[in-house]
Amino acid sequence: MKGDRSLSPTEQEHPDYYVHIVDENSKGIVVRGAKAHTSVSINANEIIVLPTRNFNEQDRDYAVAFAVAPDTPGLKLISSPYAESDSRNEFDFPISSKHKMIETLTVFDDVFVPWERVFMKGEWQMAGPLAKTFVEFHRFTAISYKLPLVDLLLGSSELIADYNGTERASHIRDKITWLVSYAETLRALVKMAAVECKIVDLDIAVPNTLIVNMAKWHFAKNYHQSIAYVQDIAGGLLATAPGGDDLQSAEIGAYVRKYMGGRRGIDGEKRLKAMNLIKELTTTDFGGYQAVLAVHAEGSIEAEKMATLREHDATKFKAYAKEMAGIED
Amino acid sequence: MKGDRSLSPTEQEHPDYYVHIVDENSKGIVVRGAKAHTSVSINANEIIVLPTRNFNEQDRDYAVAFAVAPDTPGLKLISSPYAESDSRNEFDFPISSKHKMIETLTVFDDVFVPWERVFMKGEWQMAGPLAKTFVEFHRFTAISYKLPLVDLLLGSSELIADYNGTERASHIRDKITWLVSYAETLRALVKMAAVECKIVDLDIAVPNTLIVNMAKWHFAKNYHQSIAYVQDIAGGLLATAPGGDDLQSAEIGAYVRKYMGGRRGIDGEKRLKAMNLIKELTTTDFGGYQAVLAVHAEGSIEAEKMATLREHDATKFKAYAKEMAGIED
Amino acid sequence: MKGDRSLSPTEQEHPDYYVHIVDENSKGIVVRGAKAHTSVSINANEIIVLPTRNFNEQDRDYAVAFAVAPDTPGLKLISSPYAESDSRNEFDFPISSKHKMIETLTVFDDVFVPWERVFMKGEWQMAGPLAKTFVEFHRFTAISYKLPLVDLLLGSSELIADYNGTERASHIRDKITWLVSYAETLRALVKMAAVECKIVDLDIAVPNTLIVNMAKWHFAKNYHQSIAYVQDIAGGLLATAPGGDDLQSAEIGAYVRKYMGGRRGIDGEKRLKAMNLIKELTTTDFGGYQAVLAVHAEGSIEAEKMATLREHDATKFKAYAKEMAGIED
Amino acid sequence: MKGDRSLSPTEQEHPDYYVHIVDENSKGIVVRGAKAHTSVSINANEIIVLPTRNFNEQDRDYAVAFAVAPDTPGLKLISSPYAESDSRNEFDFPISSKHKMIETLTVFDDVFVPWERVFMKGEWQMAGPLAKTFVEFHRFTAISYKLPLVDLLLGSSELIADYNGTERASHIRDKITWLVSYAETLRALVKMAAVECKIVDLDIAVPNTLIVNMAKWHFAKNYHQSIAYVQDIAGGLLATAPGGDDLQSAEIGAYVRKYMGGRRGIDGEKRLKAMNLIKELTTTDFGGYQAVLAVHAEGSIEAEKMATLREHDATKFKAYAKEMAGIED
Repeated sequence: MKGDRSLSPTEQEHPDYYVHIVDENSKGIVVRGAKAHTSVSINANEIIVLPTRNFNEQDRDYAVAFAVAPDTPGLKLISSPYAESDSRNEFDFPISSKHKMIETLTVFDDVFVPWERVFMKGEWQMAGPLAKTFVEFHRFTAISYKLPLVDLLLGSSELIADYNGTERASHIRDKITWLVSYAETLRALVKMAAVECKIVDLDIAVPNTLIVNMAKWHFAKNYHQSIAYVQDIAGGLLATAPGGDDLQSAEIGAYVRKYMGGRRGIDGEKRLKAMNLIKELTTTDFGGYQAVLAVHAEGSIEAEKMATLREHDATKFKAYAKEMAGIED
Repeated sequence: MKGDRSLSPTEQEHPDYYVHIVDENSKGIVVRGAKAHTSVSINANEIIVLPTRNFNEQDRDYAVAFAVAPDTPGLKLISSPYAESDSRNEFDFPISSKHKMIETLTVFDDVFVPWERVFMKGEWQMAGPLAKTFVEFHRFTAISYKLPLVDLLLGSSELIADYNGTERASHIRDKITWLVSYAETLRALVKMAAVECKIVDLDIAVPNTLIVNMAKWHFAKNYHQSIAYVQDIAGGLLATAPGGDDLQSAEIGAYVRKYMGGRRGIDGEKRLKAMNLIKELTTTDFGGYQAVLAVHAEGSIEAEKMATLREHDATKFKAYAKEMAGIED
Repeated sequence: MKGDRSLSPTEQEHPDYYVHIVDENSKGIVVRGAKAHTSVSINANEIIVLPTRNFNEQDRDYAVAFAVAPDTPGLKLISSPYAESDSRNEFDFPISSKHKMIETLTVFDDVFVPWERVFMKGEWQMAGPLAKTFVEFHRFTAISYKLPLVDLLLGSSELIADYNGTERASHIRDKITWLVSYAETLRALVKMAAVECKIVDLDIAVPNTLIVNMAKWHFAKNYHQSIAYVQDIAGGLLATAPGGDDLQSAEIGAYVRKYMGGRRGIDGEKRLKAMNLIKELTTTDFGGYQAVLAVHAEGSIEAEKMATLREHDATKFKAYAKEMAGIED
Repeated sequence: MKGDRSLSPTEQEHPDYYVHIVDENSKGIVVRGAKAHTSVSINANEIIVLPTRNFNEQDRDYAVAFAVAPDTPGLKLISSPYAESDSRNEFDFPISSKHKMIETLTVFDDVFVPWERVFMKGEWQMAGPLAKTFVEFHRFTAISYKLPLVDLLLGSSELIADYNGTERASHIRDKITWLVSYAETLRALVKMAAVECKIVDLDIAVPNTLIVNMAKWHFAKNYHQSIAYVQDIAGGLLATAPGGDDLQSAEIGAYVRKYMGGRRGIDGEKRLKAMNLIKELTTTDFGGYQAVLAVHAEGSIEAEKMATLREHDATKFKAYAKEMAGIED
C-alpha cells in the first residue's frame, strides 16, 4: 500500500513525517521520517524509498530515493497486529491460518545511507514523475493480482449456491451474473491494458495508463457490493454456523453434520468448508483487510478517479461535439 | 431492434403473431403474422425474416426464414410516427432536422414467397441456434455503433462545461470522469471482444460472445445515468433556453446573445448550439428514441444479462473455490 | 426553476447578468439584468424578483427585491420553444397536447420600479437568508408536486406490465418493487418533513429543512433510473409503435389493433394509450423537460446535497463516536 | 436472525430439518428438528418456537408453536464460534472485547413439551399468518436497533475525517453527505412507520408494514456501500496501524504516538482509538458479523423486497394511470 495519497493532507501539514535528508557528508546522507502502509517489508531484503508526490524547490530535502537493508541502524519496522493468527485452525480459517501479509509503519530515525545506495537527492522536479511512474506500474500489478481474488468471490458464490440448492432462484442468478460481469470486465481491462501498452526507451512496455486506472477503479468501487452479493448468496450461516470443534465433537458432531448439510446429500462438513472460505473472504479480519486494501492499496479510489481523468485527452471529444453541433471554431 | 425478446410472453400467448406458414405449393410458401420493431425496413431492398426464439416440434410452421422485397403483395410496413420532423430547423434540432431512423410494424398478410427465397422451412431444431447466431453478431454491431453515441455524450459534456465555465468544479469533474470511464470501458470491451474472437468454419471470426453481451449490458444499464450526468453538467437551459428564431429576431436577438453567452466571451449563439446538441441527445424525442433503444434494441437488458450468465463457464470457478476451501471432490 | 445555482459560476464572472439597481430617484429605482429559468411567468399577474445568493458589501446594488406586472415597460419575457404543441393530437400526446409549462428568459432592460413595489434595496446581509428562505419553502413545494409524477411512473408501469402480460416475470417484479420504494420513500419523507416542522414567528410552520433537502435529493438522483425501469417494463413499442392515425385508418387500422393487442384480449387501442402515456412521461420532449426539471428545478442536485450536509449537526454524532471509542475530550 | 427464509429451499427438500411433532400423549407433545440462526438463545429464560412459513394440510405436524426452558432434556444449543474474544484488549477491540451476541444452532432431539406450553398444534392455516406477524414486529425492532449502528458509522467517519484533517475535501464531504442521507432517511422511515401505524384488536399499534419493510430494505441494501465510504474516509491505517501494545511500548511507543498523530496536534493515541472503533465496525470479525446481519437478519434482502411489493396496493396506482391515459374501463 505504498504511495497512498489519502494521508497527504495530514502529512502536508506535518512535513516532518515525510522521509527527508537531515545531514550529509562525503560517505552518504542521513534520513529521517516515516512511511506508513509498507507491505511485506519484514520479508524484504531491501527497502526502497521513493517520493510519493510532487515537491517544489523548497522541499528539495524531501526529494530523496534510496535503498537500505532491513537491519540498518535507525530503521524500525513496527508491524500491524492485524489478523494475528496464533490459534487459528485450518477448518475455521482456511486462509488466515496459513497466510498473512504483514504491514508496517516504517520509521527512519536518522538512518545513514551510503552514496552508492542513493538514487535521488534533491532533484525535486523528478519527484512527481517518479511517484507517477511507480504507481502506474504498481496499479497494473494490483489489477493483475486482484483478479484471482475476484474470481474466488465468484467461484465460492457459485459453489455455495449449489450446496444451498438455490442456484436456480432468479435473485441468486442475478447476483451471480453481476459477479460474472465484475470479474470478466476486470479481466478484459487487465488484458487490454497490456494489449494497448506503449513501448518506451529500452523497449520497456508500459501498460496503458488510462485503462490501468480505470480497471483499478472498477475493481475498487464495486468491491463492497460484490461482498454484499457473496454474503447474500451464502446465507446467514456465515455468522451463525458451528465451528470445526463442534463438528469433531463426539457429543454433538452428528447434529452439526446433519443440520448443516446441504441439498442432494451434501454433507455438513463440505458445506461448512465452503461457508468458511466465504467467511474468510468477507467476514473475518482477513476479509476486512482485503476490503481496506480494495479501497486504499496502490492508491485510493479518489486517486484512481483523478488519474482516469488526467489520462483522458478531452481535445478530440470536444472537437467531435463541436462538429456535430455545427460550431466552427 | 429485431429479435427483441421482451414481447415474447405476449406473443407466446398469441402465437398467430409470429410469422408462420399457412400454405405451400410447388412454387413456394404463404406466410402470415407480424414483426414488431423492424428498423430501417423502408430503406431496405430485401427484408429478411428469421425466427427469434426456440420452437418445439409442434411449432414447426413457425420455423421459417426467407427474404422478400418491400413491394411484395401482402407485405405492409406501418411506420412509427416517432420523431416526425417536418418543421424542424437545424439550429434547434441539429440532428433530428436531418436524420431519422424509421421503425415499422411489418405485417405479412398472406405473403407468397417463392422457394428460391426460402432459407428455412420447418427445421424447428435450428430456430433457436439461428436466432442466437443472429443476435450474437447483431450485438457486436450494436456495441460498435453505440460507441460514437457515448463518445458524443462525453464530448458534448466537456464542451458545455467549458462554455459554462464550470469545468473545474469538483462535482463536474466527478461526472465527467464517470463519463470517461463509461465510454472507455465500452471501447476496451468492444476491442477485446474482437481480439478474443474464435475462428469458425469458413474462417469466419466470431466475436467473443461473453464479452459482447457484457459490453452491451454495460452500455445499456448505465445509459440513463449517463443522461442524468450530461443534463446535470449542461444546466437548466436545456429546458428554458430561447430558440433559434429568438436569436435571429431583430427585436430580441441581442438579449438572447448577451444573456445566453458563456464565460470568457463565449457568445450566446455558440453556447446555444452546444446546448441544442445536448437537447437532441437527451431531451427531445430523438433523445427519447435513443434511450429506448439503449434498453431494448438488439435484445433487452434482461436478454443481455441472461446471455452473460449463459456464456460463463462456472466449472473452473467452482473448482478453484473447492481447492481453496480444501474440498476434495 | 428560479434560484438555480448551477449558473452562478458563469454569472459570477459576468455580474451584469444579475438584476441590479442602475439608478434611483424620489419615485423609485431602475433595474437592469436578467433572470433565467422563470417558470410560468407569462401566466403571472406579478413577477417577484429576489436575490439568489449571498452578496457582499460591494455588491449592494444586487441586493434588490421587488414586484412588477408583466407589462411593465422594459420587461421582456422570451419564451422557451420547448415542447411546442400546435399539431399534437390527444391520442399520440395525451399530456402535451393539453398541457405545457412556459419557461422564459426574463430581461430587465432598465425597468422602473416605484418605491411601493420595492422590498429590499441594498440590505446585502439579508440577500443570502432571503434566498435560503425562498428555496426552503420552494423545495417543499417541489417534493409535494413531484409525488404525483412519481406515482404516475409507478402506476403506468404496473398498467403496461398487465397489458404486456409480463407482470409475474421476476425482473419486472424487481423493477416495480424498486419503483414502489422510490415513490413510497418520497411520500414518507414529504410527510415527515411536515410532521417535523418547526413553528417560527407568526405561527408559520417551516418544513424540516434537512428532510426537505434529502427528499428532493432522493427524488432527483433516482429519477433517471426510474425512467430506465419504466421504459424497460414498457418495451420497445415506445419507439416503434404505430400512431393514432394508423389506428384510425380504414386500410391498416385492423392490423394495428390486432398486432398491438396485449394478452387476455387487451385491444391494441387500449395498449397503445397506455404506451403513449409512458412515451409522454419518458421519451417525448415533454418527458425530456421533466427529466431536466428533476435535475435542476428548485436547485440542482449539488445544491440539495450541499444543503443536506449544511442542515446536519455533526456535533452529537461525533460525540457519540467519541464515547464509543473511549475518547474523553 | 430467526425467521430467515433464505434457507427454506434447502429445508423444503429436507423437511426433517423443520421442528415438527413426532409423538403426543395426554401430557404433551414430542418435537424434533432444528432451528438455525437463533440469536441470544443462551441468554434466554424461555425459547419460543414458531413456524417460519406457510404450510399446507400435509405439513400439519410442522404447524407447531411452543415455549421451552433452555435446560429442557433433548434441547441442544450449539454456539457459533464467531468473534471469540478471550484475549481481546479494549484498545484494539473497543467493542468486541466487551460485547458479543451469541448465535446458536438449536437442536430439538425429541424434546417433550407439556400441553400448557404448546401454543399451536396442527393449525396449519395459521402458520403463515403467525410467521408474518412475527416478522412484521421483528423488522420494526430491527430498523429501530440498527439506527444507532448507522449513526455510529456516520459519527465515527466525521470524527476520523477531523483527525485526519480531510473534512473539507470535496470527496470526503460527498461521502459524509451520503452517510447523512443514509442515516436520516432510515430515521425518518422508522418514525413514519410508527406515525402511520394501524390500531388493531386490544389497542395494539401495528407499525406500517409497507414502510417497515422498505426501511429495512433501505438499511440492508445500502449497508455495504456505507462500509466502503467509512473505510474510504478513515484511510489505509485501518489495515496497517500499530496496535495498543506498540503504543505502550517503552521502546517504540513514542514513534507510534508521533507518526500516528493527526493534524492540529491530535495525538496518536486518540487517533488510533477512533481508527480502532472503525476497525471494529468494518474490518474485524465483529464488523463482518454486522455485515452478515445487515443482509440476513430479520429476513433477507429478498424477503424485504418481496414484502415491500406485497404490501403495496397497485389498484389505485393503475387507476390513476388509466385516467391519465384516457382509458375508460
